[in-house]
Amino acid sequence: MPELSPLAPDSFPLLPPVEGVELATAATGLRYKKRDDALLMRFAPGTTVAGVLTRSQTAGAPVLWCREALAGGRVQAILVNSGNANAFTGRAGIASVERCVSSTANVLDCSNREVFVASTGVIGEPLPDNKLTDSLPELLDSLSQDRWEAAARAIMTTDTFPKGATRTTDIDGKTVTLNGIAKGSGMIAPDMATMLAFVATDADLSADVLQQLLTRANNRSFNSITVDGDTSTSDTLLLAATGKAGNTPIRSITDPRLRRFSRALEELLIDLAQQVVKDGEGASKFITVEVTGATSARSARRMGLAIANSPLVKTAIAGEDANWGRIVMAVGKSGERADRDRLAISIGGVEIAQDGQRVEDYDETPIAEHMKGQDILIQVDAGVGRGRARVWTCDLTHGYIDINADYRS
Amino acid sequence: MPELSPLAPDSFPLLPPVEGVELATAATGLRYKKRDDALLMRFAPGTTVAGVLTRSQTAGAPVLWCREALAGGRVQAILVNSGNANAFTGRAGIASVERCVSSTANVLDCSNREVFVASTGVIGEPLPDNKLTDSLPELLDSLSQDRWEAAARAIMTTDTFPKGATRTTDIDGKTVTLNGIAKGSGMIAPDMATMLAFVATDADLSADVLQQLLTRANNRSFNSITVDGDTSTSDTLLLAATGKAGNTPIRSITDPRLRRFSRALEELLIDLAQQVVKDGEGASKFITVEVTGATSARSARRMGLAIANSPLVKTAIAGEDANWGRIVMAVGKSGERADRDRLAISIGGVEIAQDGQRVEDYDETPIAEHMKGQDILIQVDAGVGRGRARVWTCDLTHGYIDINADYRS
Repeated sequence: MPELSPLAPDSFPLLPPVEGVELATAATGLRYKKRDDALLMRFAPGTTVAGVLTRSQTAGAPVLWCREALAGGRVQAILVNSGNANAFTGRAGIASVERCVSSTANVLDCSNREVFVASTGVIGEPLPDNKLTDSLPELLDSLSQDRWEAAARAIMTTDTFPKGATRTTDIDGKTVTLNGIAKGSGMIAPDMATMLAFVATDADLSADVLQQLLTRANNRSFNSITVDGDTSTSDTLLLAATGKAGNTPIRSITDPRLRRFSRALEELLIDLAQQVVKDGEGASKFITVEVTGATSARSARRMGLAIANSPLVKTAIAGEDANWGRIVMAVGKSGERADRDRLAISIGGVEIAQDGQRVEDYDETPIAEHMKGQDILIQVDAGVGRGRARVWTCDLTHGYIDINADYRS
Repeated sequence: MPELSPLAPDSFPLLPPVEGVELATAATGLRYKKRDDALLMRFAPGTTVAGVLTRSQTAGAPVLWCREALAGGRVQAILVNSGNANAFTGRAGIASVERCVSSTANVLDCSNREVFVASTGVIGEPLPDNKLTDSLPELLDSLSQDRWEAAARAIMTTDTFPKGATRTTDIDGKTVTLNGIAKGSGMIAPDMATMLAFVATDADLSADVLQQLLTRANNRSFNSITVDGDTSTSDTLLLAATGKAGNTPIRSITDPRLRRFSRALEELLIDLAQQVVKDGEGASKFITVEVTGATSARSARRMGLAIANSPLVKTAIAGEDANWGRIVMAVGKSGERADRDRLAISIGGVEIAQDGQRVEDYDETPIAEHMKGQDILIQVDAGVGRGRARVWTCDLTHGYIDINADYRS
């Protein structure tokens, strides 16, 4: 069992109730012993939903179902299990999803398309879905508004701490709450990497507006983090809005009342995404990469991810080595436009290179000091435009190899 | 100092002379002490040349020069140094290259455009090019046809063994020899990853034909290997043809006499490329990934590289764990077209999955045995077409982290 990440927060935050959302967890025994491994989230009728799903070409059966159900824009239940990803399970996997969905729809008396499912854990093994559906009565009986931390724990696989976040804002003078939980990106053999996140709010927003907000905020949060560049078959992010806050419904993305909600959502997702990185396998340092001066925000993000995904950059940081040459290399290999003769690089706020070469009188002392800390800041200016982005990652340590290679020894 | 790779060949192969090619090495002291760090290759007048250079946006000054000189299609000298990559050195770096090139052209009495340069080593530090040019008289004096192994040793940085290969074939009944040396991909802090390879033949081929042959063979060799997915600022592959074998000159790529030469070149480059992988940092296993059933050869290669670059696949192999779920994941994240429900996966020739799910009565015993060996074979059929490719890589071990993170400790 991996030890608690040194980057873990002190405690799980207090998540207040979100009107119209109830949660329940149960121990189904489908893989783990003596721990909750199932989560049921129940939403008031009329709740709207949006989602972002893995782009993997080998997506698991639950992802395929969510993709279909999202077209309906409504949710009354999300059923999640940990321990088995129900991925690469062929037709049997699809049948499992169908049984889970229809059983849940039955007990909640809603349509199949209002039931979403997500699974995380071992892949290629049939999901013993009867254990999940058998637990539905128990789950139904224990639904409560105050089970957020238990929910965050039930969806963990190799995570070393549960991940949650909350924000409040207001719309039309009504207080609006956003709560979210996430799991990832512990990827221990033989389990798979998977990032799951479920966010709920009591704001009244159309599914269409919700989807546009989520896509944008996701780009700046979960799409801006990386642990090792590997992508799961099961990544799922769902956002539900119950409408119980009592604001006048918002049905257009250009509605100015969205501004603060949008910012709160982005902050919440960044908070969750950073927690995922801080639980990266073997992580000993949290790394922020800020790219400016790119041709576009998209290009800046790609350049940032190239740096954040580079094993050479990540191992250097693990070794507390301010190896900026590797940052130059990563910028170069990203394929994004940068001006070699205007490139500037700083670490810990101290400029190392400008105009495409090392600064005169370069003194590594303050940077070496920064490298010893737990929070590392890398800043790169590409020197060609005004695009900017931030991405987050962790270092690559012996711990990663221990967890991923030495599982059987 | 890293130990000799466990995948190293028993000895350096015997490279016969290539008519029209002479080599010399010297210890300039520009960074290393007491070892040769400079290589001069001299070619008979009229020698044609082709090259493949890094696509990095932050390519070093020597790469920029080679790109320009390749347009001329002729070579009389290649001057190489190890210990300093002359990359990210701004205008000073370009001036260094100019001095090296014109000094070499002077002593050899050829045009600047017939002089190629390559540098590998630390980046961001000015190249003390005077040490290199001061060594030119010594290099010139010691030119010999029999210095191939010394040449391979002089261009090493963190390589644990020198890399060379030779092939013979014939054209028009004339024996044709191909010799090649390479270095890479040891990437130790604060040095950079760099792959250099220099190949010479006595065949008589136009520069245009040579370039087309090289591009194709490079795709199936150096472009089909990966250690950690990082790309150097300095990668350089040059192929020179002296024409001394006496065949009737070949000036068209469709000339049927090229068939065997082309095969020999491809074999030679694959041999060198595999040696580079076998010297991958921390490598304990050599991995061949064969992809079939893709939409095209290009798509198959990308899928293969996604598998070969996946830290999760590579750590699993280091741990001798037949974690085929991670192969599914890597296929999915490649973004290349594959049929999830027709995907087949074998390890060590034993089928694990077919038609998108695990085979019935899957028995891991023979595969577990295969995983204990030093040569690992992964085969994937994407189930959508007839494109195929092979790529090679090594596993990801604690040794990689030791070399790249623990340099200062």
